[in-house]
Amino acid sequence: MTETKLISAAMLIIGNEVLSGRTQDKNLAFVGNALGEIGIDMKEVRIVPDDQAEIVGAVNTLREKYTYVFTSGGIGPTHDDITADCIAAAFGVKLEMHPLATQLLEAHYEAQGIEFNAARARMARIPEGASLIDNPVSTAPGFRIGNVHVMAGVPKIMQAMMENILPTLEGGEKLSSVTITAQVPEGSIAAAMEKLQGDHPEVNIGLYPFYGADGAGVSVVARGRDVAALAEVEAAVKQQFDDMGMPLIQRPPPAEFLKG
Amino acid sequence: MTETKLISAAMLIIGNEVLSGRTQDKNLAFVGNALGEIGIDMKEVRIVPDDQAEIVGAVNTLREKYTYVFTSGGIGPTHDDITADCIAAAFGVKLEMHPLATQLLEAHYEAQGIEFNAARARMARIPEGASLIDNPVSTAPGFRIGNVHVMAGVPKIMQAMMENILPTLEGGEKLSSVTITAQVPEGSIAAAMEKLQGDHPEVNIGLYPFYGADGAGVSVVARGRDVAALAEVEAAVKQQFDDMGMPLIQRPPPAEFLKG
Repeated sequence: MTETKLISAAMLIIGNEVLSGRTQDKNLAFVGNALGEIGIDMKEVRIVPDDQAEIVGAVNTLREKYTYVFTSGGIGPTHDDITADCIAAAFGVKLEMHPLATQLLEAHYEAQGIEFNAARARMARIPEGASLIDNPVSTAPGFRIGNVHVMAGVPKIMQAMMENILPTLEGGEKLSSVTITAQVPEGSIAAAMEKLQGDHPEVNIGLYPFYGADGAGVSVVARGRDVAALAEVEAAVKQQFDDMGMPLIQRPPPAEFLKG
Repeated sequence: MTETKLISAAMLIIGNEVLSGRTQDKNLAFVGNALGEIGIDMKEVRIVPDDQAEIVGAVNTLREKYTYVFTSGGIGPTHDDITADCIAAAFGVKLEMHPLATQLLEAHYEAQGIEFNAARARMARIPEGASLIDNPVSTAPGFRIGNVHVMAGVPKIMQAMMENILPTLEGGEKLSSVTITAQVPEGSIAAAMEKLQGDHPEVNIGLYPFYGADGAGVSVVARGRDVAALAEVEAAVKQQFDDMGMPLIQRPPPAEFLKG
């Protein structure tokens, strides 16, 4: 039996507007999927307001507990952008004007004929000892300190930063998954799936119900790192639906798939 | 000066599929907006996997810290639906077959000619001392114990449960908000807005940048419970844009509004 390396991640989404329900977060889906592709499991997400004590507390808890932490939001030029201050406080280091960041921002604004004022210069304030994360969209960099990656909240910018971060991460063994869907209410296969889960503890078997024009259905999602075991589970689930005389169907759109 | 009652809430979203990025959560936006309407502030959200220790730990932390807690996910009939077990464990009470829930579920499945099997009966397992939350969509109830409200993850069901919960909550003084938007980069008004925030500590002033075909713009969102102070802030922001010769514009779609 080979040893499997498990690498974990957490995300901290910073912003009053996400909490209030006014803004729909789109960053978790991008980060979760991108990490999954390289075998890193997203294990926890916290969403906190623009409040120093809350941000510092969450960063310090998450960076202790998981291999990597990713934050989004609060690194713009305005007074409510306090993430850099909070990360410096969490690590107990100074926040300093970073020479390269300053130079990049100055050149960026000069090229556009926009004043490089004190507010914009705030975006060059980087915790001591951090490395910059390139922002090809709007220049103001993110940064990495320890195992914490600090990114913008605007999805286009966050995604570009994440693309730059991905090659620097140590990936784990990739989790494979199979999805088997049929127009069967989940309660009808619950006992069989519980037994199957018991027989294959190395595979994670989740049931995701949906309700459509044709009534209740279920997607069985099996995930694991042991591909032989995964294939056995897949075959057993297909057999289960076949024994019930129910054909497999294509998966409906993801929006229908929230957990019941 | 009248005393303002601040009522807080947290949400716990339970499910591997939300963490992995496969499923986009839609429940926070609904709950955050619904609570905001009755003056309850969403202060923290956690998303955790289908793991007993993680769920119990998060529930116990959040219910101590906030007035109300709302959970979504993990109350279906299958082996990976462990929320009821976890809530009972968090409160240190037994999980029991609830007579009314059992009766409702039995009648529901009988009416549809579907077997009321052991898996479906699991959905009648309710922590001792909890009250049921009606589920007009698919019968299996949610429940409330202490200040914790346990709901389904399927958005249509969660929303129906939330509608039933809302009249039972004690609302606070409603937070009012105004949004003022112009095609101005946020860095150009950062200093003025910081001063305005300093002059009006009772109002929360947030800046939300967006990037469109016409370049960078910003929405200034002011929120507060003191409507006179809010009106002063609104007038000052409008004056600011007017002084710059920049007309106010309508707000672009919310998707463009993630925090920078």
